[in-house]
Amino acid sequence: MSVVPSSSEILNHSRNQVQADLLSVLEQQYWPQVLADAVRHAVLLGGKRVRPALCYAACLALGEPVNAAARRAAVAVELIHCYSLVHDDLPCMDDDALRRGQPTCHVQYGEANALLAGDVLQSLAFEVLTGTAFEADQPPTSTNQAQLMLQQVRALAAASSRMVAGQVLDLQAEQQQVDEPSLRNIHLNKTGALIVSAVQMGAVAAGLHLQQPKMQQLELFAQALGLAFQVQDDVLDVTASTETLGKPAGSDEKLQKSTYPSLLGLPAAQQLAADLHQQALDALAEWPEDADALRQIAHFLLSRQS
Amino acid sequence: MSVVPSSSEILNHSRNQVQADLLSVLEQQYWPQVLADAVRHAVLLGGKRVRPALCYAACLALGEPVNAAARRAAVAVELIHCYSLVHDDLPCMDDDALRRGQPTCHVQYGEANALLAGDVLQSLAFEVLTGTAFEADQPPTSTNQAQLMLQQVRALAAASSRMVAGQVLDLQAEQQQVDEPSLRNIHLNKTGALIVSAVQMGAVAAGLHLQQPKMQQLELFAQALGLAFQVQDDVLDVTASTETLGKPAGSDEKLQKSTYPSLLGLPAAQQLAADLHQQALDALAEWPEDADALRQIAHFLLSRQS
Repeated sequence: MSVVPSSSEILNHSRNQVQADLLSVLEQQYWPQVLADAVRHAVLLGGKRVRPALCYAACLALGEPVNAAARRAAVAVELIHCYSLVHDDLPCMDDDALRRGQPTCHVQYGEANALLAGDVLQSLAFEVLTGTAFEADQPPTSTNQAQLMLQQVRALAAASSRMVAGQVLDLQAEQQQVDEPSLRNIHLNKTGALIVSAVQMGAVAAGLHLQQPKMQQLELFAQALGLAFQVQDDVLDVTASTETLGKPAGSDEKLQKSTYPSLLGLPAAQQLAADLHQQALDALAEWPEDADALRQIAHFLLSRQS
Repeated sequence: MSVVPSSSEILNHSRNQVQADLLSVLEQQYWPQVLADAVRHAVLLGGKRVRPALCYAACLALGEPVNAAARRAAVAVELIHCYSLVHDDLPCMDDDALRRGQPTCHVQYGEANALLAGDVLQSLAFEVLTGTAFEADQPPTSTNQAQLMLQQVRALAAASSRMVAGQVLDLQAEQQQVDEPSLRNIHLNKTGALIVSAVQMGAVAAGLHLQQPKMQQLELFAQALGLAFQVQDDVLDVTASTETLGKPAGSDEKLQKSTYPSLLGLPAAQQLAADLHQQALDALAEWPEDADALRQIAHFLLSRQS
């Protein structure tokens, strides 16, 4: 029996927490039925919930239990992530029919409803972040809480914008060979910014301000982790494909897209993932064991096989 | 020479102010070129700028000059409005090729870039609203300002969500005959909520809190005005069509959509517009002449011929 929770225990616990909170938030919306259905389809069908886990862990890393502000932020960042997936899957973008083994939102509910479900997920994120969810026992918003919420809104809105800029860069890169700095820039924006914001918002929920030096260490951690996650994704895409028979048609075309293995070769890409993992851990070198949940999540993301 | 500015003077002044502020905000973004171009296309090509004008006028109605918080809110609400137009025009929605005599965003920049331009306009709205634009001479955010910004975020995010719900209801109504209460509900959400938020945010910028009785009067004003605007739109659509030769094909089909004239008949719809206008003015009956800009905008919207 271990005292320190394992990475899978941490992620399971986070996933259960955010699933319950997402459900509770969605149940409180007065939406036309088809919008409610499309949103539930987009939000509740699974996912690793990495961003909420990082948000909770950042709050814990500062010695604070996960509070209402961290829970709101975890919901908000996951709503933004889900909106981006719905829009990414649309015919004018990646035109994907399946996600997590289920029909994508537009396949199930039509393009217009999927577009609008994505749109409302974004505004809902900011409603939740600045609302009063999950704090039944607490008094109305104090001025201190207002400062805190405001910093969270700034972090999430900036990340959400950078995510879109990254998607535009990614679309452009499909039509050409890009170099490693360009690929890094795409990922820092497309996926990195939102991952960084999850950690920022969790730390803000614990009382850390955006400009403080400890926040910069957390940001370095999250940025390296986000990149490592992406490099590892690219690596798994290759190693899985060489080991897997019956690869679906179209994967070769996908491989024409610039990836870390295609740019650097597989061994160098694997080394880069390991280096970035180490860089993430180094950023937290001076942090006490309260930061172990963050370290465990990093370990999980880099050792996963799918 | 009149001392009280005319409604067109008020709207021209507001339009110039928000145009300059929008330009300044967009110039500060570090975006891939095509995203910057698509956003500029969506935002800067014109429009009546009714929502910013209402935002400024609500601030003035409380005896406060238009300040940085009102200017940020005016930009933010217009960004949300512009995002909704870009997404509305997409092929899976209204599939419009022209807006204000120009190619729509997706015609000019492709569907994917238009989708993403709309997405980033929404997040940019929340960045601007909680940022430090237009306050070079002011100290960093005070706790009081934080409370204020937070109320503005709540108002805008809630309105943005309601707008999407209204669009879903509107899509559903295209396939059936709806009754007057349903039509009212569509408009209260689809266009009314954002108009109400413009007035709320302008009043919050002047120091009025969301729960205060005077705010409720402003909300009644804005709600009645928003509905009146929509009824007037429907009326003009009919009266213009009967007076205009060479009506483009497809208008008949459009008329199969439920409108106030189609539900109530033209004279009753015209009377409803006038009644709602009066209702809007009645909500401000006790307000001093500081509220004249609000009254003038109401007058302009109801007397317009296009």
